[in-house]
Amino acid sequence: MDAALPLDEVGKIEAEIGKILPKGTSFHDLRTRKSGSRRFVDFHLLVPGANTVNEAHALCDRIEEALERTLSNIAVTIHVEPLETHKEVKHKTIE
Amino acid sequence: MDAALPLDEVGKIEAEIGKILPKGTSFHDLRTRKSGSRRFVDFHLLVPGANTVNEAHALCDRIEEALERTLSNIAVTIHVEPLETHKEVKHKTIE
Repeated sequence: MDAALPLDEVGKIEAEIGKILPKGTSFHDLRTRKSGSRRFVDFHLLVPGANTVNEAHALCDRIEEALERTLSNIAVTIHVEPLETHKEVKHKTIE
Repeated sequence: MDAALPLDEVGKIEAEIGKILPKGTSFHDLRTRKSGSRRFVDFHLLVPGANTVNEAHALCDRIEEALERTLSNIAVTIHVEPLETHKEVKHKTIE
């Protein structure tokens, strides 16, 4: 079984995502994995449900590009969810 | 390093996704992995870019629930992309 990424790399990933996320969006369920020399990252991105897929995907692209600049050999998978369905849970919301 | 799921399971996953996808949507980049007794699946779902995040996410939920009924111990991550940015590539489009 593969291991998670080291904590310093997880911290870098969280910081990069935080820099990019617009006000009112957030993320959760960050999972990381190292398999050989390859890094795998996935998380849930919460955006307003009325946003279009085009808008959400443009944001995903910006985050993916930033993470690729931060760590080599990284594959990022982002699952977009409507913010409104997750209001009851505490997240790393960017204020 | 973990292995992909056996081909018969991958076939079941593709069939389930195909049953649910509405006309004009498609998927690609299906990746599967087995780690211990746990199954991991992710893929890209292509929907019209003007759709809302709410609409796309409802479709994701339906697919995730169907896959959870089909195979036990499965974690599904779906990345939604605008169909229009992928027109140049051949996919398993549901006609």
